Amino acid sequence: MSNSRIKKVGRGDERLLDQLRGVRITPNVVEWAEGSALVEFGKTRVLCTASVDEKVPPYRAGKGIGWVTAEYSMLPRATHSRTPREAAVGKVSGRTQEIQRLIGRSLRGIVNFVSLGERQIIVDCDVLQADGGTRTASITGGYVALALACKWLQKKGLIDTFPLTNAIAAVSVGIVQGQHVLDLNYSEDSAAAVDFNVVMLDSGEFVEVQGTAEGSPFSRNDIDAMLSLAEKGIRELFEIQKQAISEA
Amino acid sequence: MSNSRIKKVGRGDERLLDQLRGVRITPNVVEWAEGSALVEFGKTRVLCTASVDEKVPPYRAGKGIGWVTAEYSMLPRATHSRTPREAAVGKVSGRTQEIQRLIGRSLRGIVNFVSLGERQIIVDCDVLQADGGTRTASITGGYVALALACKWLQKKGLIDTFPLTNAIAAVSVGIVQGQHVLDLNYSEDSAAAVDFNVVMLDSGEFVEVQGTAEGSPFSRNDIDAMLSLAEKGIRELFEIQKQAISEA
Amino acid sequence: MSNSRIKKVGRGDERLLDQLRGVRITPNVVEWAEGSALVEFGKTRVLCTASVDEKVPPYRAGKGIGWVTAEYSMLPRATHSRTPREAAVGKVSGRTQEIQRLIGRSLRGIVNFVSLGERQIIVDCDVLQADGGTRTASITGGYVALALACKWLQKKGLIDTFPLTNAIAAVSVGIVQGQHVLDLNYSEDSAAAVDFNVVMLDSGEFVEVQGTAEGSPFSRNDIDAMLSLAEKGIRELFEIQKQAISEA
Amino acid sequence: MSNSRIKKVGRGDERLLDQLRGVRITPNVVEWAEGSALVEFGKTRVLCTASVDEKVPPYRAGKGIGWVTAEYSMLPRATHSRTPREAAVGKVSGRTQEIQRLIGRSLRGIVNFVSLGERQIIVDCDVLQADGGTRTASITGGYVALALACKWLQKKGLIDTFPLTNAIAAVSVGIVQGQHVLDLNYSEDSAAAVDFNVVMLDSGEFVEVQGTAEGSPFSRNDIDAMLSLAEKGIRELFEIQKQAISEA
Amino acid sequence: MSNSRIKKVGRGDERLLDQLRGVRITPNVVEWAEGSALVEFGKTRVLCTASVDEKVPPYRAGKGIGWVTAEYSMLPRATHSRTPREAAVGKVSGRTQEIQRLIGRSLRGIVNFVSLGERQIIVDCDVLQADGGTRTASITGGYVALALACKWLQKKGLIDTFPLTNAIAAVSVGIVQGQHVLDLNYSEDSAAAVDFNVVMLDSGEFVEVQGTAEGSPFSRNDIDAMLSLAEKGIRELFEIQKQAISEA
Amino acid sequence: MSNSRIKKVGRGDERLLDQLRGVRITPNVVEWAEGSALVEFGKTRVLCTASVDEKVPPYRAGKGIGWVTAEYSMLPRATHSRTPREAAVGKVSGRTQEIQRLIGRSLRGIVNFVSLGERQIIVDCDVLQADGGTRTASITGGYVALALACKWLQKKGLIDTFPLTNAIAAVSVGIVQGQHVLDLNYSEDSAAAVDFNVVMLDSGEFVEVQGTAEGSPFSRNDIDAMLSLAEKGIRELFEIQKQAISEA
Repeated sequence: MSNSRIKKVGRGDERLLDQLRGVRITPNVVEWAEGSALVEFGKTRVLCTASVDEKVPPYRAGKGIGWVTAEYSMLPRATHSRTPREAAVGKVSGRTQEIQRLIGRSLRGIVNFVSLGERQIIVDCDVLQADGGTRTASITGGYVALALACKWLQKKGLIDTFPLTNAIAAVSVGIVQGQHVLDLNYSEDSAAAVDFNVVMLDSGEFVEVQGTAEGSPFSRNDIDAMLSLAEKGIRELFEIQKQAISEA
Repeated sequence: MSNSRIKKVGRGDERLLDQLRGVRITPNVVEWAEGSALVEFGKTRVLCTASVDEKVPPYRAGKGIGWVTAEYSMLPRATHSRTPREAAVGKVSGRTQEIQRLIGRSLRGIVNFVSLGERQIIVDCDVLQADGGTRTASITGGYVALALACKWLQKKGLIDTFPLTNAIAAVSVGIVQGQHVLDLNYSEDSAAAVDFNVVMLDSGEFVEVQGTAEGSPFSRNDIDAMLSLAEKGIRELFEIQKQAISEA
Repeated sequence: MSNSRIKKVGRGDERLLDQLRGVRITPNVVEWAEGSALVEFGKTRVLCTASVDEKVPPYRAGKGIGWVTAEYSMLPRATHSRTPREAAVGKVSGRTQEIQRLIGRSLRGIVNFVSLGERQIIVDCDVLQADGGTRTASITGGYVALALACKWLQKKGLIDTFPLTNAIAAVSVGIVQGQHVLDLNYSEDSAAAVDFNVVMLDSGEFVEVQGTAEGSPFSRNDIDAMLSLAEKGIRELFEIQKQAISEA
Repeated sequence: MSNSRIKKVGRGDERLLDQLRGVRITPNVVEWAEGSALVEFGKTRVLCTASVDEKVPPYRAGKGIGWVTAEYSMLPRATHSRTPREAAVGKVSGRTQEIQRLIGRSLRGIVNFVSLGERQIIVDCDVLQADGGTRTASITGGYVALALACKWLQKKGLIDTFPLTNAIAAVSVGIVQGQHVLDLNYSEDSAAAVDFNVVMLDSGEFVEVQGTAEGSPFSRNDIDAMLSLAEKGIRELFEIQKQAISEA
Repeated sequence: MSNSRIKKVGRGDERLLDQLRGVRITPNVVEWAEGSALVEFGKTRVLCTASVDEKVPPYRAGKGIGWVTAEYSMLPRATHSRTPREAAVGKVSGRTQEIQRLIGRSLRGIVNFVSLGERQIIVDCDVLQADGGTRTASITGGYVALALACKWLQKKGLIDTFPLTNAIAAVSVGIVQGQHVLDLNYSEDSAAAVDFNVVMLDSGEFVEVQGTAEGSPFSRNDIDAMLSLAEKGIRELFEIQKQAISEA
Repeated sequence: MSNSRIKKVGRGDERLLDQLRGVRITPNVVEWAEGSALVEFGKTRVLCTASVDEKVPPYRAGKGIGWVTAEYSMLPRATHSRTPREAAVGKVSGRTQEIQRLIGRSLRGIVNFVSLGERQIIVDCDVLQADGGTRTASITGGYVALALACKWLQKKGLIDTFPLTNAIAAVSVGIVQGQHVLDLNYSEDSAAAVDFNVVMLDSGEFVEVQGTAEGSPFSRNDIDAMLSLAEKGIRELFEIQKQAISEA
């Protein structure tokens, strides 16, 4: 991948192959939420809130330990053409459920449930505008909202120890026109032969690696190259998260 | 009501009894939508998009005339404590349906369906942050999104005549602590004895007047006083709408 | 409106502009219910039952105070052409929910929940035959069923004080062919430019005023004229209710 | 069974073991329906309407032949204690579906679908008050509504030949306190060891025989005795149906 | 019927009119279930499991007595052409509910709920391959699964007395091409004029008799003949059940 | 991993770390299906059927090309304790949808939709008994059912060219007690720190790699080791598939 900066062919938005889109995280955007952040990856815009609920789900009650869950949704006109509301359809689609399971599982991977105490934090990720990478943006912004809610709990004296053990962020990588690229936007994603979502801790370890051949299969070497790209991008995201949390 | 400006007692946010909250309408906030506007009444913030669909509902097809419909929803953490998603619950609540029926009916009141041609415009009103008056804000902002979508249709050469016959806006009025007040925020709304939603055209005529006694009943005189207050507020809203559309 | 009795043009059923249809309320029509009434406004026929439930909804439990709620439905062939059952469709329509929220809110406006004690009364309004004005007939007949159920509670020694503070009744008014008319039947309702539903107490005060422009908007003067008409009609309904309750 | 008239012990309402409750069928009770009848078996009261729909279900379309279907429902307070609405619950219960399948299947057994032509008749059976035997009352009254709708079709010149080949009626029989009894009311039904629903044509042949042991099993002799009782009761019902149709 | 063995005309699979298909019951086919059996009637194949649940439904709790319930389903490709899954459709069909109510009611008819103690046994009948008679096969195989679960409870020392009072089995009979036949397969069932499902105890008494005219009505004599046929078949099934339970 | 055969510590069932469970694929187990296979991985048992439908989904119609989709479900008692049916709950769970999307996507990766022609093949994977690895078993067995259905199409002369471009199979790998292991059973899966599902073509290329940290995160080296293990296992599965198809 060392020469990826040279072959800058093929990205419509003039980015280098290993370059993130403009990423911005604005903390505390929703007045009522214990933690919140608006995360933007280029034109992708996700509103993340973290809500503290002093009750855990019934099957976890009475054990003195906490829980974190996530929900994901898109506004109907977040997409290029309008998508019907899931509430109107009467059920949550498979795609939505798969994504919110991924976000929840990832965020739970960094929570010390004993330190959190018997309460639940619900992280809502609502996509206001979609241009590819909404699930990885949700994890990246959801972490900031979650961290701010944990700080709120600490400030209120409700918990003693900060319950997050690591920072966590995510990015998509893929193979587009034969090249390994970082942080695909919608038009790249549509044209991608392979699409990987990578979720990583600031320890450099992974918690999720999901790779799917959309058009043609991939080799062990492809996996290697894409994981390296993802690692580079996620390390940059950790800096942006840190900045957002500190200025909150 | 002439002396309402004098008795400024009782409004937590220092407003006069007949004063709107700070209202702001930002046009073109969603890149993909044919028309869009973010409307803010104080802390109430609603994202309105207007989506052009070249098909009308089946029962109106083949007649060469258009249709306008509206959907309304709140993000789970738009509210002081988190509200479960209607998609997760599996059905749209009665309150939501009542509101989206009101918005749709109001907006249809200003549309010339022949000029619009056989197509549908769907106005989505998604509440990002709620602090009272979300349905009236939705109508007020929804009008701007709808007007921008109609301009888009005209610019694209898809329609000849601008299909909106009037401007339309709405505001809430009520009786709080015995006083007639304009544009109630959430805490006033919770304490109100009577709550009116008024939808008016720029001709000065009404298309909806919905008054409900929440705590104690109201008289003919109360109705009169509240309609006067609403009229004053809505006239100010028409100016803000005009401004937003012109700068779009 | 003083000359409304003169201009008797335009009502298909030969009624004066300010004349109710034939109204009949038959009490105690359902053997098992604590209170019941069959209410007829011309061809509109609604079966109202009031069921005492010794439990209140969970969120109100343990406070020693009562609750009243309402449900509304139409038999499939209450309408000119058959309407599919909401149970078969699998959800309650927005229209139905809006109506049952209105009925419940109106009836709760006259209940002293402390006198009622910690129990719930459910008022079911089932339309057997629909010819316009079903929601106002439901409130008018629902009051009788509710009052009879309260009398039953008193007779059984379950409550000490009669828990209803007022009588309540409702009627529709509207603008049909440019004229203000009282108690619209289905064909008038279909042709109406404006439709108002007015719910009033026997104190002469209002608890709900809902006016909707169906075809053309309305002025302050129209509102005034229609409220006067409604008031006249509702005063007649109070007499019919009183009669029905006394003969029960 | 010959001595059943002698042992009149055990029926709370003083009936003989082989005696029907007071049965009344009032035709044409719903103004808008093509056929309708209110059927009463003692306190059991079912409103039956037959609605002509000029379309058949998609899978039967284009064949020139008709269809008959039935729906069954109970008003919430038809029962001794209030039953929640199926529309509110969001689904039709197993019991309801089983009953409406039975009614539809029975009525279809007497229809010549070629004579009916490519149209559907929907028979709605809504129980206003329940006191046992609602499904057999529904078949008995549903036949009258169906016959009246067929007469309406004939009178309108929409069909040439009357499409019903037989009269059909139904009754329940059972074993209560060791005795074979006809037409069980609710309290008998609750105490019955065995419950049979029998649907018969005026030719004396059966279209449905459904026997269920509720408390203790039954023998071949019991079946025989109960079928004889049912036959006797149904023959009486045919007379009452004929009367109702002729006076319609 | 005495000469039914002579007239062997008309059965596609060379069976005598009063002959069962090849019936096989394999016990203990599911490792995790407390009781299980695979039952085959010719090509009809149903997997029955009995699951012990130490909780009873809420409305039966705290009384020290048990409950038995049944669920029935078909794999999508159990049928000649694929049937959509009820889970995908979002609701259990009327047919399925009717069948599982029948199975549950039948099995409950042989249970001493006091001996069973306050626990529930759920009998699941999943049709792997359908060729007619799935409901009667489910009862026949469900009994074996239920009996094995009861033996498991006894072996574990959880109950003292075996809680089943009788053996129970079921078979279908019908009229095909004018002849009374036992145990109809799918092609016979499709062609049958009359279809009876008979559920019998090893005492020779009945718990369910459900006869339906599919094409033409039936007489008292037909009922008699079919009950005799069913009795013969069910007696053979009891032997096969006994064998399966003993070898388990 | 070279010494994995030596450290055989820790697998309850005496397997080597890189050893599959006993795998058996029985073809043609469902008489009515165009293709079918029962696949067993140890105690995990999945019934796979492939149903040919001569219609494609509406949005793909009229293009002359085919489609393949998959559905996945578990019998209620496939699991150690009984799981409620999704049909009874009224919706397909997120887990089920995620799995059936994976199976469908994987199988579509080997289909030439032009060769298949405008028809759909639906692959149903119903888990009869679950002991870990049901989704990878479903892909492995689903391939056999799909291949047999394609052979059926070819034999019937409905297609010219065999439409599958590759064989496909899948296996799970993971980290259990610090060791990389192949083909986890349920108890290993429950204890696993990391769980990978790998789907591979017989070309040696991948179509899906899904790795999830269940307890602790994983490194690049772990990914490498697990992919090697998976590759070894899947190569063995290709042989078993080939055998099953040839003997069908």
